[in-house]
Amino acid sequence: MVSLKTAGDAKVSINKSMAADGPLSAEELQSMDAYWRASNYLSVGQIYLLDNPLLKEPLKREHIKPRLLGHWGTSPGLNMLYAHLNRVIKRDDLNMIYVIGPGHGGPSLVAHAYLEGTYSEVYPNIGQDTEGMKRLFKQFSFPGGIPSHVAPETPGSIHEGGELGYALSHAYGAAFDNPDLIVACVVGDGEAETGPLATGWQSNKFLNPARDGCVLPILHLNGYKIANPCFLARIPRDELRKFFEGMGYTPYFVEGDDPAGVHQQLAGVLDTAVADIQEIWADARDRGNVKRPMWPMIVFRTPKGWTCPPEIDGKKSEGYWRSHQVPMGDMDKPEHIRILEGWMKSYRPEELFDDGGRFKPELAALAPAGHRRMSDNPHANGGLLLRDLKMPDFRDYAVSVPSPGATIAESARTMGAFLRDIMKMNMESKNFRLFSPDENNSNRWQDVLEVTNRCYMADIYPDDDHLAPDGRVMEVLSEHQCQGWLEGYLVTGRHGFFSCYEAFIHIIDSMFNQHAKWLKVCNHIPWRRPIASLNYFLSSHVWRQDHNGFSHQDPGFIDHVVNKKADVVRIYLPPDANTLLSVTDHCLRSRNYVNVVVAGKQPAPQWLTMDQAIKHCNEGLGIWEWASNDKGTEPDVVMACCGDVPTLETLAAVELIREHIPELKVRVINVVNLMKLQPPSEHPHGLSDRDFDALFTKNKPIIFAFHGYPWLIHRLTYRRTNHASLHVRGYKEEGTTTTPFDMVVLNEMDRFHLVEDVIDRLPQLGARAAYFKQAIHEKLIEHRQYIEKYGDDMPAISGWKWGLKGQAGAPHRTSTEGDNA
Amino acid sequence: MVSLKTAGDAKVSINKSMAADGPLSAEELQSMDAYWRASNYLSVGQIYLLDNPLLKEPLKREHIKPRLLGHWGTSPGLNMLYAHLNRVIKRDDLNMIYVIGPGHGGPSLVAHAYLEGTYSEVYPNIGQDTEGMKRLFKQFSFPGGIPSHVAPETPGSIHEGGELGYALSHAYGAAFDNPDLIVACVVGDGEAETGPLATGWQSNKFLNPARDGCVLPILHLNGYKIANPCFLARIPRDELRKFFEGMGYTPYFVEGDDPAGVHQQLAGVLDTAVADIQEIWADARDRGNVKRPMWPMIVFRTPKGWTCPPEIDGKKSEGYWRSHQVPMGDMDKPEHIRILEGWMKSYRPEELFDDGGRFKPELAALAPAGHRRMSDNPHANGGLLLRDLKMPDFRDYAVSVPSPGATIAESARTMGAFLRDIMKMNMESKNFRLFSPDENNSNRWQDVLEVTNRCYMADIYPDDDHLAPDGRVMEVLSEHQCQGWLEGYLVTGRHGFFSCYEAFIHIIDSMFNQHAKWLKVCNHIPWRRPIASLNYFLSSHVWRQDHNGFSHQDPGFIDHVVNKKADVVRIYLPPDANTLLSVTDHCLRSRNYVNVVVAGKQPAPQWLTMDQAIKHCNEGLGIWEWASNDKGTEPDVVMACCGDVPTLETLAAVELIREHIPELKVRVINVVNLMKLQPPSEHPHGLSDRDFDALFTKNKPIIFAFHGYPWLIHRLTYRRTNHASLHVRGYKEEGTTTTPFDMVVLNEMDRFHLVEDVIDRLPQLGARAAYFKQAIHEKLIEHRQYIEKYGDDMPAISGWKWGLKGQAGAPHRTSTEGDNA
Repeated sequence: MVSLKTAGDAKVSINKSMAADGPLSAEELQSMDAYWRASNYLSVGQIYLLDNPLLKEPLKREHIKPRLLGHWGTSPGLNMLYAHLNRVIKRDDLNMIYVIGPGHGGPSLVAHAYLEGTYSEVYPNIGQDTEGMKRLFKQFSFPGGIPSHVAPETPGSIHEGGELGYALSHAYGAAFDNPDLIVACVVGDGEAETGPLATGWQSNKFLNPARDGCVLPILHLNGYKIANPCFLARIPRDELRKFFEGMGYTPYFVEGDDPAGVHQQLAGVLDTAVADIQEIWADARDRGNVKRPMWPMIVFRTPKGWTCPPEIDGKKSEGYWRSHQVPMGDMDKPEHIRILEGWMKSYRPEELFDDGGRFKPELAALAPAGHRRMSDNPHANGGLLLRDLKMPDFRDYAVSVPSPGATIAESARTMGAFLRDIMKMNMESKNFRLFSPDENNSNRWQDVLEVTNRCYMADIYPDDDHLAPDGRVMEVLSEHQCQGWLEGYLVTGRHGFFSCYEAFIHIIDSMFNQHAKWLKVCNHIPWRRPIASLNYFLSSHVWRQDHNGFSHQDPGFIDHVVNKKADVVRIYLPPDANTLLSVTDHCLRSRNYVNVVVAGKQPAPQWLTMDQAIKHCNEGLGIWEWASNDKGTEPDVVMACCGDVPTLETLAAVELIREHIPELKVRVINVVNLMKLQPPSEHPHGLSDRDFDALFTKNKPIIFAFHGYPWLIHRLTYRRTNHASLHVRGYKEEGTTTTPFDMVVLNEMDRFHLVEDVIDRLPQLGARAAYFKQAIHEKLIEHRQYIEKYGDDMPAISGWKWGLKGQAGAPHRTSTEGDNA
Repeated sequence: MVSLKTAGDAKVSINKSMAADGPLSAEELQSMDAYWRASNYLSVGQIYLLDNPLLKEPLKREHIKPRLLGHWGTSPGLNMLYAHLNRVIKRDDLNMIYVIGPGHGGPSLVAHAYLEGTYSEVYPNIGQDTEGMKRLFKQFSFPGGIPSHVAPETPGSIHEGGELGYALSHAYGAAFDNPDLIVACVVGDGEAETGPLATGWQSNKFLNPARDGCVLPILHLNGYKIANPCFLARIPRDELRKFFEGMGYTPYFVEGDDPAGVHQQLAGVLDTAVADIQEIWADARDRGNVKRPMWPMIVFRTPKGWTCPPEIDGKKSEGYWRSHQVPMGDMDKPEHIRILEGWMKSYRPEELFDDGGRFKPELAALAPAGHRRMSDNPHANGGLLLRDLKMPDFRDYAVSVPSPGATIAESARTMGAFLRDIMKMNMESKNFRLFSPDENNSNRWQDVLEVTNRCYMADIYPDDDHLAPDGRVMEVLSEHQCQGWLEGYLVTGRHGFFSCYEAFIHIIDSMFNQHAKWLKVCNHIPWRRPIASLNYFLSSHVWRQDHNGFSHQDPGFIDHVVNKKADVVRIYLPPDANTLLSVTDHCLRSRNYVNVVVAGKQPAPQWLTMDQAIKHCNEGLGIWEWASNDKGTEPDVVMACCGDVPTLETLAAVELIREHIPELKVRVINVVNLMKLQPPSEHPHGLSDRDFDALFTKNKPIIFAFHGYPWLIHRLTYRRTNHASLHVRGYKEEGTTTTPFDMVVLNEMDRFHLVEDVIDRLPQLGARAAYFKQAIHEKLIEHRQYIEKYGDDMPAISGWKWGLKGQAGAPHRTSTEGDNA
């Protein structure tokens, strides 16, 4: 148990004698402390003040915000770390960014961006004077102002925090392929309890010191969350040391509550850590020693809410959970106003800012300049560094489709060949990686391994398969890590694609949320430059599961995605390889989106030539004339489909219908861009009502076979004219069996059910309907029986090909139906 | 780097000399190995065979399944562990269950349940004879059969696995409050890479050896995932040891590929681990030494796919990733059939099963009997052990509501008082816990701490707040842990409630999925007894965020939940404290559901007396007559609301309308049970169309104010008669500001916008409409201006009370509108 003194005496002046303990001279110590005080002053000011920013007049109630929001607790620690990182950046001309896991410590990063001048550069309204400081204070966590988190609005931020867990994953993603970049990453001890952060430490098994930069994790052990202590602060120091050593780090401890002593310890530890990093880099780069090193990390144990009043209203505040957010509320109490004034004055603002509110030049000079400022490092505004990928012509990977359905191919594998060559062309640029939770090959991207390897810095055995320190395929069995690394890689200006089983992508629902919201906000910040889109490839999808059963079926990620702002989300369900190629090309060229691509990996019939595919993807949806027989007229029924398996089943259903009732006019519509279905008022891709009506008719039955949950289609189309005639079949949480679930017939989104739906909606079929329906129903039962006996589809079903009957002259009709027409 | 021999010689007979190394006698060693061989035989049989289960005739293609599914790789390790756990269970009469993280090792647990007789007891069709074994084999991962995972169908399972990450959280949840239970928990080294599992180890900071049982984690280090090695298998042993010591465990290593040697090592280690556990328990219970001990854990490093052919088609299989799933496919090759036959015969089935297919009695006798069998332990079928909670009458906690809106109360705090007394009444039963990611008090359940504490086994300081080893409030900053612990606690027959900020609950979307699917399947398994529902309380919701901004707003969890099978999901949005009490009572009495309750924690007006609240909750939705003025007639407009803030804003809008256009007939409908809106064909709670039409009319405008994303209401109601007249306001991913977002006016779901909606939809208002609308719009602008200046709602808005004007005789009308009526 480490005993922390109450920090009541923490605000004594730094004097020369204190310099004896460490690397800082007395002058350095004094100026470092002054810089820290300045950022602390600005942090408190943002949380509390509306006016009177320099406390030139006695503090009154009307100078204080009516509602107090923000997190003080973590800010003084973040501030001290920032000031000390500045020292080594400036001294060694380091390229460094700062990832703040406790992202609600927004006041801290805003304060430093302001002290460094960056803030006024990007927000000229917030100047380096008294009026500017007043505005800086007022805008914080205020309507029309800025968030209390380290949000996109904050210069220097690539990580908003707030939802905890992803700081290290983001930091490592940023460090990949940035060989001179040090990502200082503060991990709150609260965040350290989360799962994603707990595995985030292990990212060092994937960081190559010859090729990548480095992450310097700093565990900010201030001991408390909102209302509870953190367990890493409540285990013996020896356990904590072993914990980090066991994960491959060399931990350095900085512990105390006396500012001077902590300044000296921290300066010494940072000197050591930076030297370690430079030695590791030199070892790997100059001496070719590419092995996993013991990277340094820092345990920074200082009081929560450090330097705020030790007690307020007789209750412990500094060094306790009560200082987590606003240490003192209810500012209608005159006593509280006096406490606040005393607290802020304890930082001695008159020594820090001149009369006009400008930061003293001798202190400002302590910060690095230009792009070396962490608040202005281009890596923290990755769009500035973004360069287009070199890309081959996706048409060169086209699957030959002499006639619809004539070719069998694995769409995902075709995509993999395209990705392989993109990877190859960008090996030198070092700006493209693929991410997957051990599913790269399973999802059929294995061709990529012809030109690169899987990245691995843990031990490699001779018979390992394509593992190497310089691999560009990132495989770890953690969807959180894949997502977090990719996000970190993208926001720092690079490109990537995430391959995942559809069922497991829900694991990162909340991470997707945060990234989509980040992008949405960035769209309104002129100085944030667009970044490459976050691209998901979801395969091993709900209709083709193989080794996974009912418990691993869920097509609902797209439902989740469409809830986000239409400006930033795109969803594609290409029905075959050529459409998938076209979509892939589009996704990798797009910016500031989240693109979700869902397609299968199994051998499946191919429908469109490349020319047709390009047109189809450009339109986003359209009539497949070759499958329709309504040319120039209104159809009797519209058969719509979205997704590869629904497309297959729809076409098989269409063939059954055309075989049995050739005079029925059927229109087949395929949807590749899901958002086309929404009204244009809801999504920029949305089809106009006029076009929608022209395609889907105003009153004819629509049988829609959909990849996902059926109500998503209803949700997207409920305002359309013909919505009342729309019947959707999709994935249902039913199933007469729980395993294995490849057979669409068991989830009732098969050709037989689709045909039955058509019959049910066409009264004009009259007496024929009953016979046709019975024939279809018998086929369905026969098929089910076969499946239960043999565990597989009937060969006539699995081997079905489009056009075998339909194109052989006059359609064959069974005598039963013919006799009773 | 640990060098594993190829396991080609792993199948040699165990002989007496091998017994010298360890605790097992030669006879024990031989019989342990035979038991292991039997389970291996049955595991391979399940994956491959349709017929010829005992290989009495030469193996032919038609004896083999056409599609091969399942995971062999982990099975032999799971089998050996099971056999050895049986030995210590039987010897020491231990109460033990077995959680299999690599849940796709279904063949293993099924094999053991069959060997122990449990399988035939619960599935009489699968008898202890040749025919039974044939059926056992065929049903595995076969349509109409059983899943390949350790699913609910598998006796002894409380954890399906497959989606990896939650094994330890489930195991600890099961161990809480079960003082004599040992939960052996196998963690796959793939799973160990996930975030949730990585923090799952730290659950030992919350396990009290005096009160709880124990978890014996077994890291199954077989080295490979689908296609990649696992990093914990590729770090030096010293690092691995420190990693576990750093997390508070004493690791014991069992390593090898020679079965006899591993049998001996494992037996020795298990003897030690069980002795450790018993010593820890004795220390805490007999000697009162309630401190966090170093719990034992086992590192079990054996080859992947152990005992399968070392090479197949010239490629390495055993001890390599190729044996992860099915080591050998394409059984049309005669060579493969011969290999399979040789492989299965290497287990010498003739020594294990008699001619009729019955397991040899001398081997069967090695397993424990009755409920000591892990496949028949009642803790693994928790419904058997479930007892109702003792509960006070929730009516006793009623908030007094003399008239609608007259009382201000915090709904969540009222719920907390009710939970406090439930906690108090069940302290002796030890079957109730609350779970929260550091948000128990923030979500206003702090009264619970009057009767219990927060559970903590890490160091406790004197000034800590309600922390104690015997606390029943489980707080850790990991939604995954909260969810996993609660699931483990529930499936073993206890009760709980999960309190979470609404925005962060998406973190466990995929865990919710798995649990809902588990419940759905259990509903069809007669021997699985119902368990207590999984209850979520979501507060700090999207409309009342305080310290969190745009990035932490997302009401979409309920969208996610409604995608699951209607049988198992319930969603409640109680508008005030009395309805919340009634809903809470209902949730804690319900079984086999997931109940989602969304309600605010801020002081807010109370609407219903307890009698009214009970009736309202029973109906699920209904007309609030006291707010309506359409009695006995058709209304001109229906104002519907769902959620506490939408209800408040709707009532404020209604008052504005009644003030300005008193002759307009307004019907107010409040929805507390969201699923009432769906048709009865979709959800058992669904309102009939007739009732729906009677409430919502067939053609009058409906203005619906909803807590969540508006399209959810459309999705639920698109089949209703009057859907075309439905206009929904809800949460939008917009906002003119990104912080702080308490003010509904900034998200346009406020009283002013609702009134505007009404005006827009009532042409009969004629010329009055323009003036009224302008007046409303001016109020809206005035309010927005105020917010941007003062950072808070106008007092007239935040202090608004129902009925102040409406009940003061004739409604007051402004001259503007009056003049132009």
